[in-house]
Amino acid sequence: MKRNIIAITLSLFFACCVSAQNNDSIMMRKIADEVLLHGKCYSWLDYLSNKIGGRLSGSPQAAAAVEYTYQVMEGLGADSVFKQECMVPHWVRGAKETAKILTSQSGDYPVNICALGRSIATPVGGITANVIEVDSLSELKVLGRAKIEGKIVFFNGPFDETIINTFEAYGKAVVQRGRGPSLAAKYGAIGTVVRSMTNSLDDYPHTGAMAYNDTFPKVPCCAISTIGAELLAKELKAEPNVKFHFEMSCQTLPDEKSYNVVAEIRGTEHPDEYITIGGHLDSWDLAQGSQDDGAGAMQTLEVLRIFKALGIRPKRTICFVMFMNEENGTRGGEKYADLAALHHENQIAAIESDAGGYSPRGFGLVGPIAKKDKIKSWKNLFLPYGIYDFSGGEGGADIEPLQPLGTFMLGLVPDSQRYFDIHHTAADTFDKVNKRELELGAAGVAMMTYLLSEYGLN
Amino acid sequence: MKRNIIAITLSLFFACCVSAQNNDSIMMRKIADEVLLHGKCYSWLDYLSNKIGGRLSGSPQAAAAVEYTYQVMEGLGADSVFKQECMVPHWVRGAKETAKILTSQSGDYPVNICALGRSIATPVGGITANVIEVDSLSELKVLGRAKIEGKIVFFNGPFDETIINTFEAYGKAVVQRGRGPSLAAKYGAIGTVVRSMTNSLDDYPHTGAMAYNDTFPKVPCCAISTIGAELLAKELKAEPNVKFHFEMSCQTLPDEKSYNVVAEIRGTEHPDEYITIGGHLDSWDLAQGSQDDGAGAMQTLEVLRIFKALGIRPKRTICFVMFMNEENGTRGGEKYADLAALHHENQIAAIESDAGGYSPRGFGLVGPIAKKDKIKSWKNLFLPYGIYDFSGGEGGADIEPLQPLGTFMLGLVPDSQRYFDIHHTAADTFDKVNKRELELGAAGVAMMTYLLSEYGLN
Repeated sequence: MKRNIIAITLSLFFACCVSAQNNDSIMMRKIADEVLLHGKCYSWLDYLSNKIGGRLSGSPQAAAAVEYTYQVMEGLGADSVFKQECMVPHWVRGAKETAKILTSQSGDYPVNICALGRSIATPVGGITANVIEVDSLSELKVLGRAKIEGKIVFFNGPFDETIINTFEAYGKAVVQRGRGPSLAAKYGAIGTVVRSMTNSLDDYPHTGAMAYNDTFPKVPCCAISTIGAELLAKELKAEPNVKFHFEMSCQTLPDEKSYNVVAEIRGTEHPDEYITIGGHLDSWDLAQGSQDDGAGAMQTLEVLRIFKALGIRPKRTICFVMFMNEENGTRGGEKYADLAALHHENQIAAIESDAGGYSPRGFGLVGPIAKKDKIKSWKNLFLPYGIYDFSGGEGGADIEPLQPLGTFMLGLVPDSQRYFDIHHTAADTFDKVNKRELELGAAGVAMMTYLLSEYGLN
Repeated sequence: MKRNIIAITLSLFFACCVSAQNNDSIMMRKIADEVLLHGKCYSWLDYLSNKIGGRLSGSPQAAAAVEYTYQVMEGLGADSVFKQECMVPHWVRGAKETAKILTSQSGDYPVNICALGRSIATPVGGITANVIEVDSLSELKVLGRAKIEGKIVFFNGPFDETIINTFEAYGKAVVQRGRGPSLAAKYGAIGTVVRSMTNSLDDYPHTGAMAYNDTFPKVPCCAISTIGAELLAKELKAEPNVKFHFEMSCQTLPDEKSYNVVAEIRGTEHPDEYITIGGHLDSWDLAQGSQDDGAGAMQTLEVLRIFKALGIRPKRTICFVMFMNEENGTRGGEKYADLAALHHENQIAAIESDAGGYSPRGFGLVGPIAKKDKIKSWKNLFLPYGIYDFSGGEGGADIEPLQPLGTFMLGLVPDSQRYFDIHHTAADTFDKVNKRELELGAAGVAMMTYLLSEYGLN
């Protein structure tokens, strides 16, 4: 008899599981259909890219993007829409950004550079000095002050092309940009030039943030296009006394007031369990910031639109966030986490889309194994939409400050091959975005948000 | 004792399997590294696209592409390189390709069209007639001769946007282009205009092949851009008596002599088992044909280069084929299969890459379940390279004629979202190709070719 009861109980349990998966599978299909037939993220991104443009923190365009997305959110019928004030760095690129290679054999010729975000300016008239080329940070210590002092350090470590996911190659190379300048200054460098962070051989420089270490002198630092980097390396090989000259008039102004923009749908059964999803609204100044991260921000709005259009009443509270200042400060992400802590919000999970609006392939998962396994048990629901890879371990810079609160972090993983071709450059424009790829990414985030809101993570 | 022997045998068997998989896994890595570090397919495709250009069968460019790839193959050190003569259709677009919508409310205005491949010309001066709009072939029968006779049939069935793999949406819609014109003529239509086969709303027409059914009169047929199609549909809704006018001066010339280009590496252990891999060398005339199918053809050359560069001596014979005339006749594919049959070649498997040079996602498999299962057992070897999907059932048009010989067919499945944006249009140019995506596709084909050559399919 007991055995029968166990058998019946087990049958019921499995029947329920199968039926739940069936219902979920139907909901996944509804979400995909909704975005592919009625999606708005592509036209919102068109506006953000072509009407507002580059949105570096503190700029009028960043302020316009805050107003625009606030209004879109208001129109979408969330339970509440509000702004979270935060002070952001206000770094501005100067009118002057030039560089040249000075050789005795080929004369002097210009190369394309741009200031790295947060860099100080050069003195008026620029700096000119001998160049020492390195491929990694560790070489600096080996070379020491004797070989570096008074020179411009040229960080020329390329992406490792054999790494399939280009974000991993970026992660390895980008320490040159982030920590290289101050480390070079520690050994007496008077400036640094960093090879652009990209897989491609092109002639536009890729900007990005660097961070000064206050214990060392601040030196001006620029990014050089990969074609420029190849030329400089070639000249140095032929003629070690080659000089490099660059002049930049960038500056850091006082912090500006800005905002995260947040919409909420209250949960019906567990309103005190929060799920945060977002992308960042700011971008670099050189471009429209369509892939980085207009795409992720507009996908976040699309998820809100999908939930309302399909009449989904989530069991848990969902916060849709336009984060401010990811690029050069992460102040918005920090403010968001500070306020969540202050209000004792139980932020169970956060999803960030900040790897481009390309075809989705998976989610990076950051948190305890049991929770990862729960998410992986939903894998078959995602497979029909090309989302199969849950092996990555990246969340996102804006949601990372939530981690100390015990929040499980997820990062949308789109196809990564094209991203660094245009990343942080003037070429990151709306025409690089494919409508369906963008929409499928939004569908993926909406599906994951739905499952998290239905089942939680316990 | 017997049990021990069985245990030891099983242990050895599993140890061998594990060790084979380890060795294979190392070879997969070598293949990926080789193409990502030293790949040539991108620069070959640059040449094919920018120096040779559109390569419609019978054109001087198609002949130039034959010579070019023959020379590349010769330089790569295959055991033999040869051409297979075949006669191909020689259809040429005329200088005249214009259309306009004639309304009483908005006057007359031009729209973008192009002749469909194989279409006859209109009479000089064009044809002008009332329009009857349909969304599918089956509507024609319902409407009948009474509603169709003397009119231009406008096939306006769009892609089903909810289908994730765009090739499936294409497959459903493209019957309008292929069989629509003759079916319309059956009911007395004097011409047809077909909505371009694409997911995107753009203003350039997408050409492609149609086929006349000789039992019905031949009528001229064109493709209209999707924006043009939307306009025509809107006008028809407002004013059912709207007329359409189009003029085209295309013509079919006598068949031309052309060639498949083939390179072979002889197998070391089973030289009489053949594995064929290929893409097609011809393209439509409107564009450079970079994605369709310069990509697949150059990936095929890359696989040959990889095998030679890594010193792989395949156990089975591999044929690397540049197929001629996929777009409007498949004569090259047919000739290849005819010769294989004539020479009693045991063609065990064939792989085609003809779905664009985008990031690879999988392989379509066509053949007996046991062979599919054998291939699927290699899945984990492909996963690190983003190739996970073996659920599709498409091989390729050029290798399909091999199927009656018992050949197992595989089709490379790249990400499909961007393909139909540019397919068969003037926008299918080299700049749409990403170097790493193209190379990863070549790596995928090389990996599959290697495994097939090592293990066969029995």
